[in-house]
Amino acid sequence: MDLKQHIRDIPDFPKPGILFRDITTLLQDPSAFRYAVESMVERFESVEVDVIAGIDARGFMFAAPLALRLDLPLVIIRKKGKLPFQTYSQSYDLEYGTDSLEIHVDAVSSGDHVLLVDDLLATGGSLAAAAALVERAGGVVAGIGVVIELLDLGGRDILTPRRIEALVTY
Amino acid sequence: MDLKQHIRDIPDFPKPGILFRDITTLLQDPSAFRYAVESMVERFESVEVDVIAGIDARGFMFAAPLALRLDLPLVIIRKKGKLPFQTYSQSYDLEYGTDSLEIHVDAVSSGDHVLLVDDLLATGGSLAAAAALVERAGGVVAGIGVVIELLDLGGRDILTPRRIEALVTY
Repeated sequence: MDLKQHIRDIPDFPKPGILFRDITTLLQDPSAFRYAVESMVERFESVEVDVIAGIDARGFMFAAPLALRLDLPLVIIRKKGKLPFQTYSQSYDLEYGTDSLEIHVDAVSSGDHVLLVDDLLATGGSLAAAAALVERAGGVVAGIGVVIELLDLGGRDILTPRRIEALVTY
Repeated sequence: MDLKQHIRDIPDFPKPGILFRDITTLLQDPSAFRYAVESMVERFESVEVDVIAGIDARGFMFAAPLALRLDLPLVIIRKKGKLPFQTYSQSYDLEYGTDSLEIHVDAVSSGDHVLLVDDLLATGGSLAAAAALVERAGGVVAGIGVVIELLDLGGRDILTPRRIEALVTY
């Protein structure tokens, strides 16, 4: 299956000049959505994974079914202020200003191999912050799985040498 | 299984005097998470459902596996400004001020029976907005499934006569 056929291009979102890759059309096709989840399973078949971590908010849509499919705990990494228990917080740079991601301090056990899941790898800022959070919580990043990688933005470079699997690239 | 045993109570979140029901502990237990999804399937077994709609952002975690489990399209209803295509927007009251939810104008086909899924029914404001969006997009609300219902807040009243199923109530 060619997943790109299920991803819609939206010009000028969120601002002029940006071509946004819209996965809502993929989610609306159960065969394509299932294929994406199963492809992620295959990509990390040979990797030891103890925990699936989904990144706020589109990452949740892929991380949740993946966790159930693999019978593994689902941990959520959220935008600042959303998690109710004690958290570790990690800021990262946006084009203008900064944002923060958080993880519950007890989300991961020491030495857990954590697979980070998100919809998109762009500049890599949020995934690098998520990886740092997993490590601060005592875990080991087993890999990073994304549906879409935007190659021009070079996010892969700042995440090296972690294993990164992208289902489609642009 | 008693799902309440997998939900953690957090006092004074997001502000003093509020007892927050934390589902991250449920998500971290694959048996409990699967049980929640399967319970939702059972609750709506006798209802015609064509589309699963998940509400930003905790609703995504339950709506996504439910959609795959039932082999149905997943539609996402998001906070203002997050959806890239043309949207309908619906505001709702918060304790102080208002917020808005949005749905893509082409997310639902005319007459589709849409099951709304969220983690929590509290005052019902966001779920009522989500229901209004589904109807503006041409759909019919087949029901509302939540993991937790906070009975004291009376959210059920403003959603009547729609069918509401809550896996646990407080």
